[in-house]
Amino acid sequence: MAVEVTNVKEQAQKAQKASKTLALLTTKEKNEVLHVLADELEKEYETILTENEKDLANGREKGYTEAFMDRLSLSKERVEDFAKGLREVAALEDPVGEILSSWTLDNGLKVEQVRVPLGVIGMIYEARPNVTVDATGLALKSGNAIVLKGGSSAIHSNKAIVDVMHQALKKTKIPAEAVQFIASTDRSATQELFTMKEHIDVLIPRGGGSLIQTVVNNATVPVLETGVGNCHIYFDSKADVEKALNIFINAKTDRPAVCNAAETLIVHKEWLNANKDALIAKLNEYNIKVHGDQTIVDTIPGASLAVEKDWAEEYLGLEVAIKVVDNVQEAIDHIEQYGTKHSEAIVTEDNETAKQFLNQVDAAAVYHNASTRFTDGGALGFGAEIGISTQKLHARGPMGLPALTTIKYCMSGNGQVR
Amino acid sequence: MAVEVTNVKEQAQKAQKASKTLALLTTKEKNEVLHVLADELEKEYETILTENEKDLANGREKGYTEAFMDRLSLSKERVEDFAKGLREVAALEDPVGEILSSWTLDNGLKVEQVRVPLGVIGMIYEARPNVTVDATGLALKSGNAIVLKGGSSAIHSNKAIVDVMHQALKKTKIPAEAVQFIASTDRSATQELFTMKEHIDVLIPRGGGSLIQTVVNNATVPVLETGVGNCHIYFDSKADVEKALNIFINAKTDRPAVCNAAETLIVHKEWLNANKDALIAKLNEYNIKVHGDQTIVDTIPGASLAVEKDWAEEYLGLEVAIKVVDNVQEAIDHIEQYGTKHSEAIVTEDNETAKQFLNQVDAAAVYHNASTRFTDGGALGFGAEIGISTQKLHARGPMGLPALTTIKYCMSGNGQVR
Repeated sequence: MAVEVTNVKEQAQKAQKASKTLALLTTKEKNEVLHVLADELEKEYETILTENEKDLANGREKGYTEAFMDRLSLSKERVEDFAKGLREVAALEDPVGEILSSWTLDNGLKVEQVRVPLGVIGMIYEARPNVTVDATGLALKSGNAIVLKGGSSAIHSNKAIVDVMHQALKKTKIPAEAVQFIASTDRSATQELFTMKEHIDVLIPRGGGSLIQTVVNNATVPVLETGVGNCHIYFDSKADVEKALNIFINAKTDRPAVCNAAETLIVHKEWLNANKDALIAKLNEYNIKVHGDQTIVDTIPGASLAVEKDWAEEYLGLEVAIKVVDNVQEAIDHIEQYGTKHSEAIVTEDNETAKQFLNQVDAAAVYHNASTRFTDGGALGFGAEIGISTQKLHARGPMGLPALTTIKYCMSGNGQVR
Repeated sequence: MAVEVTNVKEQAQKAQKASKTLALLTTKEKNEVLHVLADELEKEYETILTENEKDLANGREKGYTEAFMDRLSLSKERVEDFAKGLREVAALEDPVGEILSSWTLDNGLKVEQVRVPLGVIGMIYEARPNVTVDATGLALKSGNAIVLKGGSSAIHSNKAIVDVMHQALKKTKIPAEAVQFIASTDRSATQELFTMKEHIDVLIPRGGGSLIQTVVNNATVPVLETGVGNCHIYFDSKADVEKALNIFINAKTDRPAVCNAAETLIVHKEWLNANKDALIAKLNEYNIKVHGDQTIVDTIPGASLAVEKDWAEEYLGLEVAIKVVDNVQEAIDHIEQYGTKHSEAIVTEDNETAKQFLNQVDAAAVYHNASTRFTDGGALGFGAEIGISTQKLHARGPMGLPALTTIKYCMSGNGQVR
């Protein structure tokens, strides 16, 4: 069974070889493959659920949290969602082959800047088995082979999903070797991926901060850094009370465990003086635990004094750090110091102050009078995303299909020399 | 004197602080600064030449090659060329602030994808003092601060150039701190830059292969890998003789020491059989030393048998490796194995074969019937380049001003939540 191979280098080489075939397929051919994968996953859902049960049993034994078990757990409906996701990716525009620009030099040499696949994507991720399907779909649609290294807690689910996809690929023009699954749970297997520059074009880590930092600090393969979000909402002195509280509550509580959720609230002292009762009422209504500076501790009943680490914390739950400032510059400076360059929002009715915030804050996404929750490929209309980049090179913010491509200059001449 | 500071972290922090001011300047303001720098360099050329003389004396003592000494050597004319380069950069379009796309979500949230500076660029380079000026000009124009770490052989020249630029910056809106020069020739100073993710946004190494690999293998700061070029010219069976020889001779001899020069010639056996005398005559006319496979050794008088290392070698001089193949696929496979993904060319009158080559060869630039020498920012009309990327992420091929920017999503709403 292909997934049992544990020679990581050999797997990466096979992926690379398959990527050459894949890069030359038409959009129609790739879309057909995605539909075959979707159909096969739906058909074989019982096999997948049986294997998933092994991971769940293992998780119960290890005493994983309820939230973790929920992310790990599959059902017929969740497998159907995988298939739906693949069909949605099939419906997206194919970036490959797009001519981004073209011109002719004075000597007649024709230059075309064309989008081409990256080649081989190395995906290193934690528990969620849906990443196995989503990442594969996006990789294949953009003409890339993929090497999957999922977390050990989902190993049986992921193996079962990949087995089904391999069976499906055998009916298609894409070689099954284009999807490689590292079945070893040994850390050394992951580390081998870090330096396999000859065969892997990019590594995309998805998961918690420590996974991502391990990849960034050890990889010589280029990395697309994703996801850690210590996002701030700033209530300016001229913030509308209702907008401010709605935006904060949405960003904090809609899905507290995701990276575009708010973790710190920064409040102008004048706004706080005028609206402290409304803020306290909302915090109580949503059971949000508060860590704050001294002013907040003196103002909000039950707030504990924030320590240095609170300002950098991704709580990923119903907790928030709150800081009081004298002006917008102080808010910008605080974000500069503690932010993770993900998503940052200002609430104000003063357009000049908003402009200053949007211009000066260095983040993938900056918001005026809206929730940070919109930093998401789906919400922005990208159709699907492979992750949210918090780095500045190559791609920033939600990464859709074009982030999985590079460019190539194609030159046609009739003997031009310099 | 600012350039004497050797606390690398402090310098990077100063650059980062200055980058915040720089990012907000208008195009007009930045252009004015570039003109002030150009004027001051011209005015102070004697100081620069005096300091350059120290590097030259040191170089003579160390017995550097003539080519090396030529690259190191400055003159009034060369300093004037620095100034001319800065004025040309001033004339280029400013990428910063460009709105790459904008749309409005169904809920009314307005999304703008805007180009913004990267922040702080770390430039690590070898002998040529012109990089000190060129890189600074491109960085400032694109709104970035720069930390310069030049080679020790040009230390006096580089220091003098930066001193003059610092004097000039004091008359402008750009803080002198935006240009930092690491005066220490200690390797540990360079290594500090490798991991300074908090303060440096990208490292750009320019120089020989070993410098570049050291940066790539040790940096946790994202790297834009530049320049090593093992470029191939393939003469197909249907290659026009005159075009083929002209293109090869141009790519090999016009400037043999640059990265877009040809290093390997691949020849279809039929072409060789029909045109060996013409090829031999050209190789002799230009005194090109040949390393070849057995067929070449049997065909070309004086050719030595190529060893494995010859196929991967950047000769950077009047030497070439020549391989004979049976078909285009064999040529593509050879390039896949030994190429550096820089620039690769096919010469043929058969458009289908050309298409196959352009589609399948994985390189920044692929050519049909033209010299690889056009892979150059100036030649392609980019105005100036900070280097030629041989990696696939962020930027590929010649990198002009846009390669020194990233994007930012700016969202404006009236209270939108998810």
